[in-house]
Amino acid sequence: MSLDHRTIEQPTLLVDRDRVRRNVERMADKARRSHVRLRPHFKTHQSARIGEWIRSCGVEAITVPSVAMAEYFAKHGWSDITLAFPLNWRQIERINRLAKTITLHLLIDCVESARFLATQLKEPASVWIDVDTGYERTGIWWEDQRGIEQTAEVLNRASAIELAGALTHAGHTYHVETPGEIVRIHDETVDRMNHVREALSPVCGSSIAVSIGDTPGCSVVDDLGDVDEIRPGNFVLYDVKQWRLSACTPDDIAVVVACPIVAKYEQRNEIVIYGGAVHLSKDWIVDKEGRSVFGYPARWTKTGWEPAIDGGIVSSLSQEVGVVKASKGLFQEARIGDLLAVLPIHSCLTVSAMKHYISLDGERIDCLTD
Amino acid sequence: MSLDHRTIEQPTLLVDRDRVRRNVERMADKARRSHVRLRPHFKTHQSARIGEWIRSCGVEAITVPSVAMAEYFAKHGWSDITLAFPLNWRQIERINRLAKTITLHLLIDCVESARFLATQLKEPASVWIDVDTGYERTGIWWEDQRGIEQTAEVLNRASAIELAGALTHAGHTYHVETPGEIVRIHDETVDRMNHVREALSPVCGSSIAVSIGDTPGCSVVDDLGDVDEIRPGNFVLYDVKQWRLSACTPDDIAVVVACPIVAKYEQRNEIVIYGGAVHLSKDWIVDKEGRSVFGYPARWTKTGWEPAIDGGIVSSLSQEVGVVKASKGLFQEARIGDLLAVLPIHSCLTVSAMKHYISLDGERIDCLTD
Repeated sequence: MSLDHRTIEQPTLLVDRDRVRRNVERMADKARRSHVRLRPHFKTHQSARIGEWIRSCGVEAITVPSVAMAEYFAKHGWSDITLAFPLNWRQIERINRLAKTITLHLLIDCVESARFLATQLKEPASVWIDVDTGYERTGIWWEDQRGIEQTAEVLNRASAIELAGALTHAGHTYHVETPGEIVRIHDETVDRMNHVREALSPVCGSSIAVSIGDTPGCSVVDDLGDVDEIRPGNFVLYDVKQWRLSACTPDDIAVVVACPIVAKYEQRNEIVIYGGAVHLSKDWIVDKEGRSVFGYPARWTKTGWEPAIDGGIVSSLSQEVGVVKASKGLFQEARIGDLLAVLPIHSCLTVSAMKHYISLDGERIDCLTD
Repeated sequence: MSLDHRTIEQPTLLVDRDRVRRNVERMADKARRSHVRLRPHFKTHQSARIGEWIRSCGVEAITVPSVAMAEYFAKHGWSDITLAFPLNWRQIERINRLAKTITLHLLIDCVESARFLATQLKEPASVWIDVDTGYERTGIWWEDQRGIEQTAEVLNRASAIELAGALTHAGHTYHVETPGEIVRIHDETVDRMNHVREALSPVCGSSIAVSIGDTPGCSVVDDLGDVDEIRPGNFVLYDVKQWRLSACTPDDIAVVVACPIVAKYEQRNEIVIYGGAVHLSKDWIVDKEGRSVFGYPARWTKTGWEPAIDGGIVSSLSQEVGVVKASKGLFQEARIGDLLAVLPIHSCLTVSAMKHYISLDGERIDCLTD
């Protein structure tokens, strides 16, 4: 069976399974060669079915961003899950229920939360100390040896807790311009985490594990050695942001939003599509000319799509409507009533907005919904 | 019954029914005084229950942004609905089914779509010509008399179509800085639409109606006369964008997202909340200091919330996490495990992301979901 474009009547998220498999296999190969465990972050695709495709590439352990997603993937047969989120004290009951049924890994990013967990965790769980290696979002600053030690001591004393290691997310790789800078941040991250590992050894009695995981770093760097685990997520689908960072090629982007063309304005060379912020999300990049870009048009091929190089940009998004500043060529091709393919800026948020996919085989693929 | 904050364990959209009623009554009063019909745009709240609150203020006709939302509100007893969206040819069957059951108003924004509709519409419907009065998103340019006339002629010849009038959305009121500029755009819009009305009279044989509708204009202008209908939407809930435009006061903002506090970083005066782009949406404003702002913190009161004036800003959003650059005062008050109230930048997109509300009475209020 293959997807019949005529059945698409509103903005529809399409996924290319072959590209997903290729992306996952490439990362799994690299992890094997580097002797690190691949624990992909499922926040990107959010789907049990895509999880199955990933499992078939040999992946057994995963990362999730919320208790709800941990529950969803546990229900779908995943039994080794890291909840990569600062401990939410208000969900401790659901966390205890999860810890009863699966091998659960939790994050602790301050001594207060360590104390809370030490008294409130009723079931055995692994705990990782969240370390800030430069992104400055969450985690204990890597040089704060006293804070890290104190937290480790509190965790070590709790009988239900197994202190597994130190974990970081070097999200600042998203803010650079060149692959060289991504490599530099990656190397710095690994150095800093190994510094933390050594500092913790006396407290823990033995060496502890180190987990890192951002898609730009894991995609660009060849040898991921010197850490124990990587947790990239976005690499499964990729998107315009990753393409721009040279973390992928346009051919690796495994999702596109099919948007009905509803109007054309010749004087402005603009195409209006049914496809807005509630479909693509309002995430954006700034291009070399300083313009805010909310997506790039692609062209349909016999088997999927390819980027419409120099076709134009999605220049603005309202709630349900997008405006495409089109090249002359794309403008001429586009016909009202046809579908325009749009490559999303940030696939994780597009998936969150759309809540389901259609594969190029025509299969409906659901995500977690509330 | 009243909402028990202890039951909130994850990001939760709260709605204050009294503020919604007050906002709707104020706009309904203004419409009555101005002798215009209020046809509110339900794209903002997206909820049958909130629709009932609005109906109880005397509203009988509504606007929606999609076929799915037209179907949803038709199912919930609304029988006079404008689908304020360029005609999506791919949904003509569902449009015909809708036209069979309710008084349906459609938009046409080019002669090609007029021709398509003239041959494809099988049930009687009202049609409005979408006119561009300066926003440059959709519609026929107001000075393009030939284009408007041609479109009107095509529509007039189709037996199922009743040409009802000319409609515009002056969305460029969102891009200005002062209420004076909003009034100037409103006045210009009304002038341009009345120019179109006069130009169309010979074609139509009689005078046709004019419909306008952006929340900043309808909120700031005192007398809305000289048009027949207004279609504001956001005024039901308001948000930070409208507050910044002086279209509302902070006390009019009828929604807030309750976000668990999950971490605090004293050296940066930053609070990390469970509440990210998938909850608040990634819409933003740029403040006077040039910072991107994704929400403002509020403080809980006995009966609801109030803005935390000078409390700080939500300075960044990841998928599930927000970072609040807090004032010293707010930082001291905030405790891990407590809830922080966040005023959304753009309530329509926050509602789209959250998909349901809890009222301050503790009632769960659902929205349309796919």
